[in-house]
Amino acid sequence: MTHTASATHRVAIEDDHLADGRAVRLQARSGRLQSPTAGLARGFVQANLAILPKGLADDFLRFCQRNPKPCPLLAVSDPGDVRLPGLGEDLDVRTDVPLYRVWKNGELVDEASDVRAHWRDDLVSFAIGCSFSFEEALMAEGIEVRHVAQGVNVPMYRTSIATRAAGPFSGPMVVSMRPLKAVDAIRAIQITSRYPAVHGAPVHIGDPALIGIADLSRPNYGDAVRVGADEIPVFWACGVTPQSVVAASRPEFCITHAPGYMLVTDLENHHLSVI
Amino acid sequence: MTHTASATHRVAIEDDHLADGRAVRLQARSGRLQSPTAGLARGFVQANLAILPKGLADDFLRFCQRNPKPCPLLAVSDPGDVRLPGLGEDLDVRTDVPLYRVWKNGELVDEASDVRAHWRDDLVSFAIGCSFSFEEALMAEGIEVRHVAQGVNVPMYRTSIATRAAGPFSGPMVVSMRPLKAVDAIRAIQITSRYPAVHGAPVHIGDPALIGIADLSRPNYGDAVRVGADEIPVFWACGVTPQSVVAASRPEFCITHAPGYMLVTDLENHHLSVI
Repeated sequence: MTHTASATHRVAIEDDHLADGRAVRLQARSGRLQSPTAGLARGFVQANLAILPKGLADDFLRFCQRNPKPCPLLAVSDPGDVRLPGLGEDLDVRTDVPLYRVWKNGELVDEASDVRAHWRDDLVSFAIGCSFSFEEALMAEGIEVRHVAQGVNVPMYRTSIATRAAGPFSGPMVVSMRPLKAVDAIRAIQITSRYPAVHGAPVHIGDPALIGIADLSRPNYGDAVRVGADEIPVFWACGVTPQSVVAASRPEFCITHAPGYMLVTDLENHHLSVI
Repeated sequence: MTHTASATHRVAIEDDHLADGRAVRLQARSGRLQSPTAGLARGFVQANLAILPKGLADDFLRFCQRNPKPCPLLAVSDPGDVRLPGLGEDLDVRTDVPLYRVWKNGELVDEASDVRAHWRDDLVSFAIGCSFSFEEALMAEGIEVRHVAQGVNVPMYRTSIATRAAGPFSGPMVVSMRPLKAVDAIRAIQITSRYPAVHGAPVHIGDPALIGIADLSRPNYGDAVRVGADEIPVFWACGVTPQSVVAASRPEFCITHAPGYMLVTDLENHHLSVI
């Protein structure tokens, strides 16, 4: 987050303009919000965004269906439709994310706060659940989320767990890690099991080597966090998995959100709880 | 289990006399069933039994209320009443367990298949949930329960986790341990969370030393089991806790089931599932 973005964020919060998902989207659409979305519209579901041409989108939809833990689909658009059913009445995927990335043949070709100039009638948008929702549920129960407490990004690791391939999409599962005391780990498994739409229960607990992670202090993405001697590393499937799988396939065209600049929806986190 | 008991058991199974809880109780009542109850009346809830004079029973009820994970109460009788509400229409706590133990001032004074001769009008009976129920749920999902696979008793350990005292009842929590691969441990936490009436979710996972267990290969009760290098020890609160707490209080009078000879009820295990 740049200094300018922070200032924008602070002013906007003071103006009470970013209290819900629609407010954040309207600010992003107008160009006034250019900051990451963590901490905005608390209680509202934020989503990863991937936009692909229809040919690839069909394969990608099958990939997500086969890998629901790393790729929990919140919504998929009709081809060419800029809306995402169920996520917001007036949502426009071309303008409502504060910062986008545009890719051609796997190369980053543009970073923009508006992708109307790149729009095509064959594009299909995918909104994929994000761990912000379950982290809010954990913190609401008094469980410390270490990377939030340390003010850094969650540590993420490529694993030896393979995803189930579909068309050109395949590759290793990426996981995020949160260290927890045993009783909190048990509770966190219960809590996140209620949220299958945002990665659900962990995919692994304990020994990192068993899923191909050599060194917890050297994450592949994000930042390392402190792990106490009385803590167990708990690993959740991560939304970086579809991002890295898409990037590895070098699609002829693709639009994504920029890391940390999420699509904020009208759904509330508690709506995702299944029990 | 003695050779004679095994033969009785086998004949009874062949005769299809032990297919449900009531059948097992009637066989026990008649004196024809003198074997442990593991494997009988599959699908029906089996319970630990503790019978105490009313003065102590009031304290013990508060103890159970304060320690629901080791002491999940399935039913408590009225003083002097030989029935247990909700566990079986014609249930008689004096005759329906295959083998009882009778204690005076903490000393074992009798082992009998019928305690009518010991009955008093001030006795209160407690039926406490047993891990057989959740183990059946684990195995139904394809999770290997190690001590069952090895044909031994579950390993149990005294811990540094204190129970909440009530009257003369206090002491350490006893836990049972089942080693599981990480994915099975996560699934087992989900499954057993549905069964709060039979100990519920684990109380600890991972490092045994954190709950005061020095050596997994030397359980305080039951038998040691193999723990694989890729497995995590998972610890559940155990029904031996109330037994050891009652024994430590050296009550003037007490009747319990003999270890392994449980009270079989008309409740079905799936009835205990809360979600």
